[in-house]
Amino acid sequence: MEDENVTSTPSTPVQRLRHRKRSSTEVFADGDRVNASPLLVNDRNKYKSFMVRTYSTLWMIGGFVLIVYMGHLYITAMVVVIQIFMAKELFNLLRKAPEDKCLPGIKQLNWHFFFTAMLFVYGRILSQRLANTVTADQFLYRLVSGLIKYHMAICYFLYIIGFMWFILTLKKKMYKYQFGQYAWTHMILIVVFTQSSFTVANIFEGIFWFLLPASLIIINDIFAYIFGFFFGRTPLIKLSPKKTWEGFIGASVTTIISAFVLANIMGRFPWLTCPRQDLSTGWLQCDADPLFKAEPFTLPAWIPEWFPWKEMEVLPVQWHALCLGLFASIIAPFGGFFASGFKRAFKIKDFGDSIPGHGGITDRMDCQMVMAVFAYIYLQSFIVSQSVSVDKILDQILTNLTFEEQQALFMRLGNMLKDKAMMGYS
Amino acid sequence: MEDENVTSTPSTPVQRLRHRKRSSTEVFADGDRVNASPLLVNDRNKYKSFMVRTYSTLWMIGGFVLIVYMGHLYITAMVVVIQIFMAKELFNLLRKAPEDKCLPGIKQLNWHFFFTAMLFVYGRILSQRLANTVTADQFLYRLVSGLIKYHMAICYFLYIIGFMWFILTLKKKMYKYQFGQYAWTHMILIVVFTQSSFTVANIFEGIFWFLLPASLIIINDIFAYIFGFFFGRTPLIKLSPKKTWEGFIGASVTTIISAFVLANIMGRFPWLTCPRQDLSTGWLQCDADPLFKAEPFTLPAWIPEWFPWKEMEVLPVQWHALCLGLFASIIAPFGGFFASGFKRAFKIKDFGDSIPGHGGITDRMDCQMVMAVFAYIYLQSFIVSQSVSVDKILDQILTNLTFEEQQALFMRLGNMLKDKAMMGYS
Repeated sequence: MEDENVTSTPSTPVQRLRHRKRSSTEVFADGDRVNASPLLVNDRNKYKSFMVRTYSTLWMIGGFVLIVYMGHLYITAMVVVIQIFMAKELFNLLRKAPEDKCLPGIKQLNWHFFFTAMLFVYGRILSQRLANTVTADQFLYRLVSGLIKYHMAICYFLYIIGFMWFILTLKKKMYKYQFGQYAWTHMILIVVFTQSSFTVANIFEGIFWFLLPASLIIINDIFAYIFGFFFGRTPLIKLSPKKTWEGFIGASVTTIISAFVLANIMGRFPWLTCPRQDLSTGWLQCDADPLFKAEPFTLPAWIPEWFPWKEMEVLPVQWHALCLGLFASIIAPFGGFFASGFKRAFKIKDFGDSIPGHGGITDRMDCQMVMAVFAYIYLQSFIVSQSVSVDKILDQILTNLTFEEQQALFMRLGNMLKDKAMMGYS
Repeated sequence: MEDENVTSTPSTPVQRLRHRKRSSTEVFADGDRVNASPLLVNDRNKYKSFMVRTYSTLWMIGGFVLIVYMGHLYITAMVVVIQIFMAKELFNLLRKAPEDKCLPGIKQLNWHFFFTAMLFVYGRILSQRLANTVTADQFLYRLVSGLIKYHMAICYFLYIIGFMWFILTLKKKMYKYQFGQYAWTHMILIVVFTQSSFTVANIFEGIFWFLLPASLIIINDIFAYIFGFFFGRTPLIKLSPKKTWEGFIGASVTTIISAFVLANIMGRFPWLTCPRQDLSTGWLQCDADPLFKAEPFTLPAWIPEWFPWKEMEVLPVQWHALCLGLFASIIAPFGGFFASGFKRAFKIKDFGDSIPGHGGITDRMDCQMVMAVFAYIYLQSFIVSQSVSVDKILDQILTNLTFEEQQALFMRLGNMLKDKAMMGYS
């Protein structure tokens, strides 16, 4: 145990930093070099970095495409695996081996909270779909409905167990460390876990709403890197000395254009655009939402003067994609700045070392998390609520009410509508 | 500025501690004396402490009763005021005056996050009632409905502003302090603010659901103190050396009995039991929920042998009150232990000094917050969902859907019910 903690896996920030320094061939890929030459174009180390990073990027993109092709459940599984890795990286970050030895069970407690959070968040997101999946079997359906009904109480109960466990295992002279760990665990669960879980909510509204935002972040990252690599001269922000204005602007333009184009391409596959109402992996069919039906768009007057185009076919979703593109290129990078600042504040180079040339998984996910939340809120506020809230309420009625209650609701709604119609209210 | 920070209001934990020590007449009321005599009965200081604490307790109870009498909106206002005081106490706790001087706006940023959280949480809890309040005015109704629809997006936008503000004001060499403050603010908002806001959700389900849990915590506190005062000999937990097993057990029994009795008394006032569907303060009437209708209860066989009673009248809600009483006396005190442990870990005596003999407001609210969340989850899981979910869904339909959508929903629900009835599904 001891030598594992000290030599091979460094477990405190300081040890971690030393460990990094020892492996001198390692490349500094992610803007954490403090004395970076202002002329990034002439940086030597960066060619090697470029190759390493390109290889692992290509591998990741390949795996990603395969998983998207396999469908909602597989993407969800991928998200969960990433979340577990991130939690592991982050839990380890503030852990101190000598203190942990005096505190048996502190690791398990972290994971207890993690799985409670998981049950709570995924329960909220997926309960409806789970209920839809098991409707065929009366017994299972009643069981699942019951679990859903008491979902909040069950999670609360689990949380209270963790809370009491924490208090009853408080040890004199360790209070500060233990409270620090408690706060840290909760921050991770909220900032990292809960944020990234919005991804799953997006997936089931249609893979489109997961794939487009995630792709835009990747595109923005790649092009910020490429533009910075070839043209980078003006540093952007002190927090990340390797980021340049050239990279930022080049990437923004590319990302916004890509958003418009990608939305048009992705919007043509029902596999991507249809929401999934259950947890199966089978084929997906739906009436295309008007968002994904091509409409003619008259181009501004000056274009026909120069080009032979007067009109083009546009899917309405492409306008929404522009908003996503704008956010992905202007606001989401702040997620990365936040992570950089955090790493500087606590003097760590990367959150982990799982991906060659990229650092830990958490290092790659910082902007993705910000984007996932935005995509969710955008989708729920400006898209879903406009089109399918009737379906949502119907779903609610069918899952939560008994047959008698459904009938009662039907009668009362009927009476209300009659009254309104008579009052001329519309 | 400077002398205010240094002399009159101590702003770091250490300064705060020194400040406390100087005022030597101050009583140590809340279990933070490290060298407490094991025989608490013979403690001298405690008689003075007892008087101070009794006076302020009586004042608080008087004010509390008046506010409850005035109604939902006033109670809500009281909760909000308490929350603001708590946030103030807690924000100040980890603040360091010299660092703050180099960071203009760091205070405002904390309050920006606080009010964003407030808008978010209260928006979720009260939006439905707000919409009900303004139905008379068509224009206002549409405005409020619109705001409710984009409530999540608005709050997210405000949050993002705070997030970018934070990142853009990061200053070299201050990173660690600033990230610490950021994390601390978020912990306060989640642990203290969000938890305590559940109280408001309870209030509008019926003052009963706020008043009974809050009273049980107060009763448990008072009787733990009284029993500990007169009989306390066996220390309960190292975290709070003034807490004794005698106090704990005496208080538990008293609290559980009080819960049963109080529920019977409170359950007879429609002012306390009726839920309020809007934000007015007017008179309240409703058909009594079956929970509050007396039922005969046959006493166990051995009682009639000794006493002249065979049956008694019980409101069904009294059985639920027993659960609340159990929680208030067994689990909720862990909220207090948590606060004690936290104070020990960071070497502070009290979170503030607003209430003579009690410490800060936060010191009195620790168990209340745990209780409020429990009451909310208990209410939603085991009580509300059983009785009024038809009303809830109807509310949702009337606020979120247009008249046409309401009609569409009515038709589809009708068809579904017809199909089910034909299948013999019930």
